Amino acid sequence: MRMHPLEWAPSGRLRLLDQTLLPAEERWFDVASIDALVEAIRALRVRGAPAIGIAAATGLVAALRDEASTRRDEFLAAVEAGAAAIRAARPTAVNLAWALDRMRRRATATAGDATAILAALEAEAQAIWDEDQSACERIAEHGQQLLKHGRTGGRTHGRAAGESVQVLTHCNTGFLATGGIGTALGIVHLAAERGKQLHVWVDETRPLLQGSRLTAWELRRAGVPHTVIPDGAAAGLMAQGKVDVVLVGSDRIARNGDVANKLGTYPLAIAARRHGVPFYAVAPSSSFDPACASGDLIEIEQRSAAELTVPAGSAVYNPAFDVTPAELVTGYVTEQGIVQPPF
Amino acid sequence: MRMHPLEWAPSGRLRLLDQTLLPAEERWFDVASIDALVEAIRALRVRGAPAIGIAAATGLVAALRDEASTRRDEFLAAVEAGAAAIRAARPTAVNLAWALDRMRRRATATAGDATAILAALEAEAQAIWDEDQSACERIAEHGQQLLKHGRTGGRTHGRAAGESVQVLTHCNTGFLATGGIGTALGIVHLAAERGKQLHVWVDETRPLLQGSRLTAWELRRAGVPHTVIPDGAAAGLMAQGKVDVVLVGSDRIARNGDVANKLGTYPLAIAARRHGVPFYAVAPSSSFDPACASGDLIEIEQRSAAELTVPAGSAVYNPAFDVTPAELVTGYVTEQGIVQPPF
Repeated sequence: MRMHPLEWAPSGRLRLLDQTLLPAEERWFDVASIDALVEAIRALRVRGAPAIGIAAATGLVAALRDEASTRRDEFLAAVEAGAAAIRAARPTAVNLAWALDRMRRRATATAGDATAILAALEAEAQAIWDEDQSACERIAEHGQQLLKHGRTGGRTHGRAAGESVQVLTHCNTGFLATGGIGTALGIVHLAAERGKQLHVWVDETRPLLQGSRLTAWELRRAGVPHTVIPDGAAAGLMAQGKVDVVLVGSDRIARNGDVANKLGTYPLAIAARRHGVPFYAVAPSSSFDPACASGDLIEIEQRSAAELTVPAGSAVYNPAFDVTPAELVTGYVTEQGIVQPPF
Repeated sequence: MRMHPLEWAPSGRLRLLDQTLLPAEERWFDVASIDALVEAIRALRVRGAPAIGIAAATGLVAALRDEASTRRDEFLAAVEAGAAAIRAARPTAVNLAWALDRMRRRATATAGDATAILAALEAEAQAIWDEDQSACERIAEHGQQLLKHGRTGGRTHGRAAGESVQVLTHCNTGFLATGGIGTALGIVHLAAERGKQLHVWVDETRPLLQGSRLTAWELRRAGVPHTVIPDGAAAGLMAQGKVDVVLVGSDRIARNGDVANKLGTYPLAIAARRHGVPFYAVAPSSSFDPACASGDLIEIEQRSAAELTVPAGSAVYNPAFDVTPAELVTGYVTEQGIVQPPF
């Protein structure tokens, strides 16, 4: 049932599932160079904060195999140049920079020649991946306690204890977005595997429809009951008492708890607050940025106008992310438990 | 610059601009029967609460021309049957039922044979259209006072008096949606014609993109500066102090002031309240439904799953409208002025 958005190819290259083609087609491709990796990250062939961190680390080491015959200083320079290029691919998710910094530090801390450093970097990349997989498992475990019937907007739901718990989610935060079972959606996957009755409202997530294309595809694969909605329908569902909890991922969490996540998360948090629906940000430690004091300081990636359908000549404002202030977040689900700022 | 979404064909038929093809193509077609009119309304070839009221009245009389040789009682039966069929095309906008009720009353109140009734109905349909055109003009006039720099979320905008007023709107409420200059967007059109500096944030309005397809097209035609945004970006713009006023249309306004309007209006109203941005519902008197006590009682049309892109087998919840409670509405702009409930 589960699958990864990336794998090692037999050649030692990084192999990616092209998520831009889902759900129509499951096509894998090998990433042969740093440039190809940058293109794949920028074009969202691989996306999701934890997954792009893992893709950055594994893709860097895969591309560096061609440099293994060079001198140590040349190899270290190639590590730095590769990391800088990959880091610039997308600015908002902190996991990308975090994973590349781990790789850079490991490279410089490793004694010996290029071959020795390459071996260390392979181990580091695999560790980043394994740690994310493990973090996902623990996040999912901690999150189980959030899947219960709630009260929203002062109304009881009028649903009996045996009925499905109603989860609302945004974008894709499942196995396609991580190295493991997922973050916010990982909580859902684990609960479903354990036989919990639940139903997921899936925001389609404009403009690139990661909800209707990817999350619905994951949930179909997993056999979890779900319904795709236009993003604008979420508030109305809350008003009708049909949402027990909102679970979203996070691309970067500032020191004060402000959450940068996929565009559309902030209006969801405002609506959840109005209706008394608990709103949780779900992310591994690698998504927390201790260097960033607050959401105001997070650089928000602007995407192409071509992602929206507009008449020629009309301007477009298309930020990939928005920032939800900490005061609207009920809690942060991490591999270390459900926490509150200061972290 | 202005244009109508419908016109009388030389044959006496109703001629409609097929709005489903905009902005790529401006194709007009003649409506030859009640069935064809029902299809056009249901498929949104003509849409917008005032425009479908006018299309219903003019389309009914155009189709009835074929019955003008029948007996009076047969003709009146044809009026009733036609009105019932058209009325069922879309349930939420009250203007449709309101226009058809006017036509039915006029038919029964007219003495004489079928030819006399037909002439009376032609006059009634034209009156409905003319009244809407006139209402739009007065609405636009009343709305001018709303186009001023505001404060949002406790921040001043940091924009000088000479800078553009920032309007945010949802769906399409311009000349394509009415028999005149428009409702919410009519306020913008009139201001622009008078040389007012303004800029419009246009919600693309998922799932059928009436904002990015129709409103952007109208504003391009009119030369009004505008920027298309994904619906989820509106709240973030408000948080940045970049929205002075939100102007939306209304498909039905209940006696208590609850507003049924295009899906996505309710989250916009919640966000506007959070950020202290004034939120106005703009509509002619024909959109007010005195028979409806509150928004809970408004039937919300469910649209086809095919309007969303989802994997085969995933369920879809796709309401065409949502309901904004009166407490979130700053005021109601009508042809009689800016009013408050009870109306």
